[in-house]
Amino acid sequence: MNPSHPAVHPVEAPPTDVHHAPRVRMKDYQGMPGTLGGLALRLGQFCFAVVAFSIMLSTDDFSTVTAFCYLVAATVLQCLWSLALAVIDGYALLVKRSLRNSLVVSLFVVGDGVTATLTFAAACASAGITVLIGNDLRECDQNHCGKYETATAMAFLSWFMVSPSFLLTFWLLASR
Amino acid sequence: MNPSHPAVHPVEAPPTDVHHAPRVRMKDYQGMPGTLGGLALRLGQFCFAVVAFSIMLSTDDFSTVTAFCYLVAATVLQCLWSLALAVIDGYALLVKRSLRNSLVVSLFVVGDGVTATLTFAAACASAGITVLIGNDLRECDQNHCGKYETATAMAFLSWFMVSPSFLLTFWLLASR
Repeated sequence: MNPSHPAVHPVEAPPTDVHHAPRVRMKDYQGMPGTLGGLALRLGQFCFAVVAFSIMLSTDDFSTVTAFCYLVAATVLQCLWSLALAVIDGYALLVKRSLRNSLVVSLFVVGDGVTATLTFAAACASAGITVLIGNDLRECDQNHCGKYETATAMAFLSWFMVSPSFLLTFWLLASR
Repeated sequence: MNPSHPAVHPVEAPPTDVHHAPRVRMKDYQGMPGTLGGLALRLGQFCFAVVAFSIMLSTDDFSTVTAFCYLVAATVLQCLWSLALAVIDGYALLVKRSLRNSLVVSLFVVGDGVTATLTFAAACASAGITVLIGNDLRECDQNHCGKYETATAMAFLSWFMVSPSFLLTFWLLASR
């Protein structure tokens, strides 16, 4: 270069499509942690579990049947878990933060799997006993069959909303 | 080259580590379709479901309780499904063929999910009624409590062996 003849030659900027080595990464499906669909699922789980718990508690003799006591315990656990996850989802949405940490997602999968299994087991046991009382023994005149049925149905609905959460989070963990 | 002076010079073969553009692909975990572990899981599911079915059928009054009839139906379905999958796994092992077709894996996931849910629901309903008869009403002297308990436990064990099949196949589908 000739120092006595300095010149600034305008040069084109290099193309900036560097992309930072794009990883193949799945998009956010609604219902995954940290999405609006996920928050809606959590709130649905919580509401159905609260209704199931309240209805079962409003019968005075639920404690004489082990399965109904178990339903109350399982719905309490489901309420606490879904409420905690709803708060986390709401926070993630507010601060626009993605919940994609491997450890966090694993924790969600295990928690969802355990609570879904417990809630479903409680709902099935209660359904078996409700059908036994109502259809097989025909003793609905001495028992709160309607309330038992409604509480069982609400527990099933709560499980029905935990399952997509579990499957989508498991999918997210597997497809990382 | 001088044609009057032919010579064969031994040359080194080029390195053959061409790798054929290695795709990122998960390895075969034992328990997935087409593995020896998968075949063992299928045979376990089948055996436990057959034992649960046989024990429940050996009680003469199972048909008076809806949940016990449902257990019989669910274990029959589980037997058929697990036997079919065991045959497919055995065939895949014999001809050393990998079961990695997307459609086939999806079918396995749906079938495993449905049969696992049905078997678990039947086991939970039977468990609820068995506990009701044995612990809450204390009428084991008039009922086959031991047989009910054993059949329920076998159904739970069958479900316990379907779950890893379902989770591993779902993992395989998600991580493709």
